[in-house]
Amino acid sequence: MFCLRVLLLEARDRIGGRSWSSNIGGYPFEMGGTWDSLLASALAKFVNVDGAFGRNIMPQPANMFHVPEARELDTLSAQDRIDAIAHSLSPNERAVLEGFVLLCSGGTLRGMSFLEFLHWWAICGYTYQGCLDFLITYKFSGGQSSFAINFFKEALSTKRLTYAFNSPVKSIVDKGNKVEVKTRNGHTYQAACMICTVPLNVLSTVSFDPPLPAGKRAAISIGHVNQCVKVHAEVADKNMRSWTGVTYPSNPLVYAIGDGTTPAGNTHVVAFGGDQHHIQPEEKLAETLTAVRSLAPGKMDDVRRLVFHNWSKDEFAKGAWFFSPPKLLADHLEDMRARHGNVFFASSDWALLWRSFIDGAIEEGARAAMAVKTELAKTGKAIAHL
Amino acid sequence: MFCLRVLLLEARDRIGGRSWSSNIGGYPFEMGGTWDSLLASALAKFVNVDGAFGRNIMPQPANMFHVPEARELDTLSAQDRIDAIAHSLSPNERAVLEGFVLLCSGGTLRGMSFLEFLHWWAICGYTYQGCLDFLITYKFSGGQSSFAINFFKEALSTKRLTYAFNSPVKSIVDKGNKVEVKTRNGHTYQAACMICTVPLNVLSTVSFDPPLPAGKRAAISIGHVNQCVKVHAEVADKNMRSWTGVTYPSNPLVYAIGDGTTPAGNTHVVAFGGDQHHIQPEEKLAETLTAVRSLAPGKMDDVRRLVFHNWSKDEFAKGAWFFSPPKLLADHLEDMRARHGNVFFASSDWALLWRSFIDGAIEEGARAAMAVKTELAKTGKAIAHL
Repeated sequence: MFCLRVLLLEARDRIGGRSWSSNIGGYPFEMGGTWDSLLASALAKFVNVDGAFGRNIMPQPANMFHVPEARELDTLSAQDRIDAIAHSLSPNERAVLEGFVLLCSGGTLRGMSFLEFLHWWAICGYTYQGCLDFLITYKFSGGQSSFAINFFKEALSTKRLTYAFNSPVKSIVDKGNKVEVKTRNGHTYQAACMICTVPLNVLSTVSFDPPLPAGKRAAISIGHVNQCVKVHAEVADKNMRSWTGVTYPSNPLVYAIGDGTTPAGNTHVVAFGGDQHHIQPEEKLAETLTAVRSLAPGKMDDVRRLVFHNWSKDEFAKGAWFFSPPKLLADHLEDMRARHGNVFFASSDWALLWRSFIDGAIEEGARAAMAVKTELAKTGKAIAHL
Repeated sequence: MFCLRVLLLEARDRIGGRSWSSNIGGYPFEMGGTWDSLLASALAKFVNVDGAFGRNIMPQPANMFHVPEARELDTLSAQDRIDAIAHSLSPNERAVLEGFVLLCSGGTLRGMSFLEFLHWWAICGYTYQGCLDFLITYKFSGGQSSFAINFFKEALSTKRLTYAFNSPVKSIVDKGNKVEVKTRNGHTYQAACMICTVPLNVLSTVSFDPPLPAGKRAAISIGHVNQCVKVHAEVADKNMRSWTGVTYPSNPLVYAIGDGTTPAGNTHVVAFGGDQHHIQPEEKLAETLTAVRSLAPGKMDDVRRLVFHNWSKDEFAKGAWFFSPPKLLADHLEDMRARHGNVFFASSDWALLWRSFIDGAIEEGARAAMAVKTELAKTGKAIAHL
């Protein structure tokens, strides 16, 4: 029964999708004490909607609506929550708090769900130290791709996997006893079941027959809000190696972190912006360079190189990692997760626990694989090779 | 390549081994504030060997000797560490601390490794709240066995698994190109590779040819120290439902927790003892009953039923979940994990992250499966069914 034959259709010329998205968790902060305590105290005020720093309203992170009141709370944006606690925040607390939550969402304070931020807080163990541990401290020594390639190699070693890159899917027709997939380049493929991993913001580009149900269509038309801009800069000043800063709200790049020393001996600084003050770096090179220099005036004048990829314009991503607007999860989380006939949907965008992270993609892959296996066993469509 | 044929030989008449062991994490505490803060402050003093509550000496819980000084620290017993901080502990702090660490180890304060307790602390996120979250709060609604049976069912559904219960292994002979296993009941089985899941304390009952190397033999002769005694009592007093207590050092049962209401309307209290003041409940029924009643004098006089299983005398367990004595891990963790020719060793007893827990057993199962798959691919012994 494990011996199923699998065909992988991939729009891009590589595996991994937006696994860049989780890079947010891949850069070692080296934060000073002042910074640390400012953000820690601000976050504690931000998340403490229940007198228990989120533990009462969301006691089970993998089941975010376990407490029914959480659903109602999902009407709040981050801005709504900040307005409610504004009187208790010092100006510096407010600046680092807004910078940090925008770093998480890549959206705007009004456009991002407060509850989804609370979910991040919950999966990180409800503490600021947990956020540092889970989101910031560790990265793969060989990079994300070194991780992804091992999944692919293991699948290949089974000799049950066929694949085609550069094959964006155009249409999916479920004929009841099989699914027929047409690609934009004119090929047609058939399978007993299909696992669709197209991200939420891209699903509208694929036609489904029968059409997707209303709930899924509504979720797709709402979409997620993350339009994170990530700019890597090589700068000459070696002291920036241990620097982290927030330049908010004046700068399109909100949050930046000194990340290491390049082979050329320059300092690598990675800077994040988002939809709050959006910039298309490849269209506005001068503005981008100014934004980088403004991160730490006088310290970053000698920029040797800028590196970026515009995920917002990437037709197979249309944004970075998933971050929900208010109400999307309360109204449509189950819709996004639901199967549609013989088509199963698997994406970190609607994972339950580590939604938006690579771990969520793995969670969803396992869920879909089990669902397909069970389905094929039930319908007897699988050919067992014994 | 995934289509390997697997034979399971199980000494018992059931799956699951000591999965009871993780039941320590399965009982919901309902702790009062006083208790909480006493134990929290005592634990903070206990683990704070580095001014960072263990984070500096063990920054990577899955790699406990990442900081070389940790190896030296493994010479300490829990008693050594308590002696070192005794001046800073109030009598009540010391009592709840000793009760809690003995609950974790099932051993004695002198016999248990301080570093292994620090490892528990680290995998729980270096906080008392984390210990409650990871060790205490959650359990499977259907019990451990409802979890284990799903692994077995999934393996069966592959139609690649054959199994034999009541088949304790007597000898393992590695002939280079295959492994030959003899059971006590006279059967002989052969395989290209073997995964041995016999617990550390039981490995001495199996003969190996060629003999196990010196490091593995040394680890086996040292063994682990957990001789936890777990006694379930049904008592009439309904108020005990929300009670948790430590009776230490006077009572063989150190730690007890009100755990629920039985269908008969009685209160279920679960009590733990260990090697510190060991009792064989089935040999000393009167003493056991006295120990239960002494947990909360006057509150537990009306005991309706006692339930227990003596893991110490269980020939296929010889103890409960793994807990190391000083130096065993520093000297022999890698020895315990090493393969021996075509025999691979997989047990939660030598897992890296959730050692002693079900999660550690899963970690080890995945490690062994990958090692065998890689080995068979390399040697070409596997028959691919394509």
